[in-house]
Amino acid sequence: MLGNASQIVEGKSASAGSGALGRAIRDAIDGKTKPLGSLGRLEALAAQLADVQQTLQPTAERCRLTVFAADHGIAQAGVSAFPQVVTRQMLRNFLDGGAAANVIAKALGVEFAVVDAGVAGRGLRHPKLVSVRIGNGTRNSAEQPAMSAAQCRRALREGRAIGSEPGCEVACFGEMGIGNTSSASLVAAKLLGLPVGELTGRGTGLDDAGLARKRRILEAAAARTPAKLAPESALREYGGFETVMLAGAMMGAAEAGQLVLVDGFIATASALAALRILPDAKRHMVFAHCSAEPGHRLVLEAMGTEPLLDLGLRLGEGTGALLAWPLVQAAAAMLRDMASFRSAGVSEQS
Amino acid sequence: MLGNASQIVEGKSASAGSGALGRAIRDAIDGKTKPLGSLGRLEALAAQLADVQQTLQPTAERCRLTVFAADHGIAQAGVSAFPQVVTRQMLRNFLDGGAAANVIAKALGVEFAVVDAGVAGRGLRHPKLVSVRIGNGTRNSAEQPAMSAAQCRRALREGRAIGSEPGCEVACFGEMGIGNTSSASLVAAKLLGLPVGELTGRGTGLDDAGLARKRRILEAAAARTPAKLAPESALREYGGFETVMLAGAMMGAAEAGQLVLVDGFIATASALAALRILPDAKRHMVFAHCSAEPGHRLVLEAMGTEPLLDLGLRLGEGTGALLAWPLVQAAAAMLRDMASFRSAGVSEQS
Repeated sequence: MLGNASQIVEGKSASAGSGALGRAIRDAIDGKTKPLGSLGRLEALAAQLADVQQTLQPTAERCRLTVFAADHGIAQAGVSAFPQVVTRQMLRNFLDGGAAANVIAKALGVEFAVVDAGVAGRGLRHPKLVSVRIGNGTRNSAEQPAMSAAQCRRALREGRAIGSEPGCEVACFGEMGIGNTSSASLVAAKLLGLPVGELTGRGTGLDDAGLARKRRILEAAAARTPAKLAPESALREYGGFETVMLAGAMMGAAEAGQLVLVDGFIATASALAALRILPDAKRHMVFAHCSAEPGHRLVLEAMGTEPLLDLGLRLGEGTGALLAWPLVQAAAAMLRDMASFRSAGVSEQS
Repeated sequence: MLGNASQIVEGKSASAGSGALGRAIRDAIDGKTKPLGSLGRLEALAAQLADVQQTLQPTAERCRLTVFAADHGIAQAGVSAFPQVVTRQMLRNFLDGGAAANVIAKALGVEFAVVDAGVAGRGLRHPKLVSVRIGNGTRNSAEQPAMSAAQCRRALREGRAIGSEPGCEVACFGEMGIGNTSSASLVAAKLLGLPVGELTGRGTGLDDAGLARKRRILEAAAARTPAKLAPESALREYGGFETVMLAGAMMGAAEAGQLVLVDGFIATASALAALRILPDAKRHMVFAHCSAEPGHRLVLEAMGTEPLLDLGLRLGEGTGALLAWPLVQAAAAMLRDMASFRSAGVSEQS
């Protein structure tokens, strides 16, 4: 099996696993007309993409962002600075092309899709909307499991099918759902066996009193179940329809041979769950950025990974993943199109 | 005068100066359908671009990278892991489209130009080459001034003319020249009044013995002149034809109303000199990335600026600046095209 090129220490010569192709990838990168290792993390990214695509000529022509939206019962307990109706309003905003994810995707040439995974209220109809409603919002996980085992299985399965759709070499997945930093904090805490308070932040912008209230609610929710849960249990007890589908979609994209750009705190919690179910998906994952949500750094460290970008983002919707796409394009171009010392007749270093 | 939006602390509401337009920019960003401040440094970047363009509808359609190449007399003293002939070989590589800067620029939709500012040997002829040879490589600054006062003035003037060429909203400038980390270390040390040893690194990849030798040579070179020099003197004594033209080009681009993406250690040393001559250029500058060359962080800190990216790059050629271009595109799209809470009918936070 090829190793995980995403864990390469920056500045070192790129590594892409121990097989013959892995060695060939390393040699190709080291032979390019540049000082050894001088493209830093771009070299590791190129090696990972080449490993995922099993080629020395990786391509990064098409990227798609799929945003999953759903509502959370725990939002009614008062864990967010925004009212729950904003999930539905933002779903319309995505369909109208006005959200951050829309305009950034368009600016960077990324295709865009949006999935109603279970927004509260009647399902919207819109030609651009993929409607896979697992339910009418989850139940309040402060009091009971957020969803049934059947709903959780279905969300994973439907997400996996969406994620495995062909056409793109690179996949971004985003989420929208008022209350979903709370859900992600609980899921990550139960997967890592950490107190949920350590993973609780201001989300969309709680003040000190709001943060204290959120922490009390999440601690009570966490107290319902053992400190550590299996992935399906953590997702069922505390997940959201959108974040469970997102976990499934990451697995599907990995199985379909795509590179997956993992967004912020919420997407990383879904990635953590996905990797507990399908560990081999890790060689397909690139952790795009570190969110300003404080729990994100903790989860990334627990996974032994270092994100590419640190821009103080805390929006979600896949916006951070989108910003890593040009880095993948640059990395692919480097390995595919740069001249070698030999081909360009450039003297090597002494 | 509008303030410098590049110094905004991430996560805070974006600031774009104190004028009426500055307030309007802040209000427009804060009114977009996202939690306040949740696009972090992208918000500051959008505010800076809008300030530079003096509009609430900034554009980022065209970006151009200009790479300046020249040779350094100090290279003959043995300060680099590569022989001096590599400058000339790489100039051909740029013209053939095989260098890192070429392929990354192409992948990201950035226009590319290359300038012979004084590569050693006979001037190349090539339809794509801009030939503005200030001299046949500089003199060895370990022993004497690298160039005459007239050459320095001409390099600044010609650079300024190239930088001010219209057509693009955003400018990247890169450099190629064996020995130019040595030159940049000396220029930055003399501008900041720091011992040059603190700004000396491995460049393209010196080993420990090579680094010790480089440090001895640079300390001897620095000992020729007072600890602190005026910008024109620092450039004349220790600069390169390519890096002095680069400083001029940054001034020209700022004067032409462009946003300037500043590359790594060498480009930042040129930016430091440019800002000593034309302080107002700072509101046009975005420091794109932090190089793995250790002196870079020190110079950035001395300038009170925080770069956008930290990817372990140490190649130059403008490659780090290129990688910040998609962030500018995303920032412009955010301010220009995102819906507001009002226009999209989305509830604001409580």
